[in-house]
Amino acid sequence: MPAESTTELTGAMIIGAETVLGTEQAVRSTDPRTGDALDPAYPGASDEQIDQACALAAQAFPRFRALPAEHRARFLDRIAELLDERVDALVERAHTETALPRARLTGEVGRTSGQLRLFASELRTGTWQGARIDQCRTGAKSRPDLRQRRIAIGPVAVFGASNFPLAFSTAGGDTASALAAGCPVVVKAHPAHLGTAELVARTVLDAALDTGMPEGTFAQIVGAGNAIGARLVRDPRIRAVGFTGSRAGGLAIAAEAAARPVPIPVYAEMSSINPVLLLPAALAEGGAGLGAAFVDSLTLGAGQFCTNPGLVLAVESEGLEAFTAAATEAITADTGAVMLTGAIADNYAAGGAALAERDGVEELALGERPEGAAAGFARLLTVDAAGFLADPGLQAEVFGATSLLVRCADTAELAAAVSALEGQLTATVHAAAEDTALAETLLPLLEERAGRILFNGWPTGVHVGHAMVHGGPFPATSDARATSVGSLSIDRFLRPIAYQDVPEALLPAELTDGNPLGVWRRVDGQLERSAPATV
Amino acid sequence: MPAESTTELTGAMIIGAETVLGTEQAVRSTDPRTGDALDPAYPGASDEQIDQACALAAQAFPRFRALPAEHRARFLDRIAELLDERVDALVERAHTETALPRARLTGEVGRTSGQLRLFASELRTGTWQGARIDQCRTGAKSRPDLRQRRIAIGPVAVFGASNFPLAFSTAGGDTASALAAGCPVVVKAHPAHLGTAELVARTVLDAALDTGMPEGTFAQIVGAGNAIGARLVRDPRIRAVGFTGSRAGGLAIAAEAAARPVPIPVYAEMSSINPVLLLPAALAEGGAGLGAAFVDSLTLGAGQFCTNPGLVLAVESEGLEAFTAAATEAITADTGAVMLTGAIADNYAAGGAALAERDGVEELALGERPEGAAAGFARLLTVDAAGFLADPGLQAEVFGATSLLVRCADTAELAAAVSALEGQLTATVHAAAEDTALAETLLPLLEERAGRILFNGWPTGVHVGHAMVHGGPFPATSDARATSVGSLSIDRFLRPIAYQDVPEALLPAELTDGNPLGVWRRVDGQLERSAPATV
Repeated sequence: MPAESTTELTGAMIIGAETVLGTEQAVRSTDPRTGDALDPAYPGASDEQIDQACALAAQAFPRFRALPAEHRARFLDRIAELLDERVDALVERAHTETALPRARLTGEVGRTSGQLRLFASELRTGTWQGARIDQCRTGAKSRPDLRQRRIAIGPVAVFGASNFPLAFSTAGGDTASALAAGCPVVVKAHPAHLGTAELVARTVLDAALDTGMPEGTFAQIVGAGNAIGARLVRDPRIRAVGFTGSRAGGLAIAAEAAARPVPIPVYAEMSSINPVLLLPAALAEGGAGLGAAFVDSLTLGAGQFCTNPGLVLAVESEGLEAFTAAATEAITADTGAVMLTGAIADNYAAGGAALAERDGVEELALGERPEGAAAGFARLLTVDAAGFLADPGLQAEVFGATSLLVRCADTAELAAAVSALEGQLTATVHAAAEDTALAETLLPLLEERAGRILFNGWPTGVHVGHAMVHGGPFPATSDARATSVGSLSIDRFLRPIAYQDVPEALLPAELTDGNPLGVWRRVDGQLERSAPATV
Repeated sequence: MPAESTTELTGAMIIGAETVLGTEQAVRSTDPRTGDALDPAYPGASDEQIDQACALAAQAFPRFRALPAEHRARFLDRIAELLDERVDALVERAHTETALPRARLTGEVGRTSGQLRLFASELRTGTWQGARIDQCRTGAKSRPDLRQRRIAIGPVAVFGASNFPLAFSTAGGDTASALAAGCPVVVKAHPAHLGTAELVARTVLDAALDTGMPEGTFAQIVGAGNAIGARLVRDPRIRAVGFTGSRAGGLAIAAEAAARPVPIPVYAEMSSINPVLLLPAALAEGGAGLGAAFVDSLTLGAGQFCTNPGLVLAVESEGLEAFTAAATEAITADTGAVMLTGAIADNYAAGGAALAERDGVEELALGERPEGAAAGFARLLTVDAAGFLADPGLQAEVFGATSLLVRCADTAELAAAVSALEGQLTATVHAAAEDTALAETLLPLLEERAGRILFNGWPTGVHVGHAMVHGGPFPATSDARATSVGSLSIDRFLRPIAYQDVPEALLPAELTDGNPLGVWRRVDGQLERSAPATV
């Protein structure tokens, strides 16, 4: 593929080893600053094209999953390398399509290539396979010889997120973890950043060709409305779904998946208001500083993060007054930002207005609303704990820089408010040393309601590593057993399989006696990593 | 509790620390040999009693999950010890209720106590917690300090199986793994063995009292029909379901769970016909011996195993004729057995008759049908591969000792038949040395369709260990990512949680720097088990 093709947009999808144009109604992304439709137009995939993408994925699956992990690791590394090479074109197009700052998008390219490399390194450790051996090859056989590993679940459909055009989209975490697991991926490109999606998809295809991956390992389709996505989820060859987006969208996909003749798992990351608990001593020590830092987190990226702090819980005190005063000042001074799309901005304004009108809710501060087609602005509302406890509707996510401060009369009310929370991606505690005893009583409540608990920080910013969990109880996600960020996310696309008395010659290398790959294994229950018999 | 209470049946349920009688319509188990209803009657649980069991489970949950793993291990060990002590009473009552042979039931008590001890030992290793640390406590903080562990998901509803009154029922694998994970359990007792269920439930309660478990850690309810089970699954405090039984039953429970305002995972082990592939050289070497051994596996326990070999696939040959002759002879000589219940026997006879009447199916052999209320008998049907491929209905499970032999013209047809299979718990290959190349081509197809692959053996008999997988793609189970047997089954009732910059004093012991519990952890991605700082 000639070098110039890496940055030239043609409105194409990727099916098999080809860039192809759809044949149905075209969609275009929009510059959210102006509301103008952007070139090129992306003709939508036909039913036959969706079918072809799934058929090729199913055809690629046996070969792709059977590749040595090192080969898939090279593929992931190559995607990362090419993304980094193409960073300027990616950032420029993504900036046009999302209005996100260039510096943020540059960082997001790095995060995207970084998580691809993380999965490449995870593949090389072999730990992901969960090898287990209950050995009985010799002597009087009182039990069978049993060996276990995890294998890829099958082709995966990925729905990218509007708010992370790179890290949660075409070659984002879902795609990276699925490919690492050995699952071919069919991406439904997000309509808000079709050009970015095309650039990334071409990059994945280039890497697949460079590293000799089977045709069909990766595809990207585009199209108007929800019908294409629904068809993709219903396709019998798709075996799991990764989704990041709204609660309504996630629930619709989960319902489609559950209604299939053969139901499949859906990993939908949906909605979270990310409660922040300000404990008394922390507030007394630095309420004003916390207020300013809170607004920094609230307004980051126009509040368009799954982990945006949409709820603050605290006991009435002077420290809370200082927090409120500082937050009010910062929000009032905030000049707003362009949101990702006009629809998101409209939903944001409407959602915040609806929240403000509920019983007992008052507006504390409203930021400046900028000119333009997709204006976002900061807003802080407040309600007392009694009002919060009386109205579950106050837990509705408003995607953007709106937050609700719940004022509690005492720590008992604070605990009651925490106990009333729905499932969350994160829960944050600001605690000083004297808050430790209170924090200790609240921690178990938070553990039961959130996927990640953080102290004395802010939930925005999700570090990609081995120990991260980006998940949580419903409605934060559709499956609290999973994370969509970090190396553990590969687990979503694997299933265990046992081999009983299978001859050594037919066993996968990671389960043979000699452990030629040198992977960690549980042998009769004990973790060990015996040295390879030969190098 | 006085010693005599351990074997005296009262018709009671267990709610909290009490044995209580239900207040609704009573149910009784039946002696399947005679069809006579057995004493005592078990009055069904009222809505209030179900509510109370779930409320106590929810109340116990925070304390139970927070117990040191060693305490829960002692609880499991104590259940095992008491079950072994009470083996005679358990076997006697189970024999009356199920007509399963005493020797088999004695073995099943040992398997049940054995798997409780396996989970106790698994708790003590700590490996189940999946501890991970991305450490950053010192120096310039370029990233947060992140630590991950897995915690219990919440109270679990367990539905026991008719065919394993001990190992898959009240204190069976689902209960053992859920309790190990830290999840309180509410069991819906199987109506076919209510007395056995009462004896076991009392044993679990005794062990809970002996080891100081929180009230509500374990409950057992009984009742007529499906309404009680549906209510249990809908209860908002229940967070996961374990089920072993029919496809219809599993799908009904999965539908209830998916329709909840907060959906929950369902682990339903449903239906499997456990294909057995007889490869040409193996058949040539010993077709007759395979035929006799096959009938031993087919008729074991009146064929009432989830892993019963309900499908045999082979290429036409002299060896296959020898297999068929030997199998026919053994089946014709078989004298049948009493099945678990009259309903199961009726369904068995009807299911086999329906299968026999489908296009292209012929009956090869029919065993003797014994006198009695719940008569089971062996049956071997056959169809050619073209007929099998044309009719997906031939894959319907007939629970009992009926099997279908699919005769293939060549190995290509054999591979096509394998490719057409639904998801299975097991797939068995009989292969001689010269079959290795063929086996190698079939193995990937089997991996994609089964949870366990075994060579030169028979699928009945599920060894409980670390490497076992008793699971598989739909419809074998509702969730191919899980196993319901073996130490990995604890994973079903855990979810990951991350701790970011949480002060050392508030971290769970398994995540503190000193690793006082000496558990395996992934530290910056590397598995290690640093010695405790102090002993």
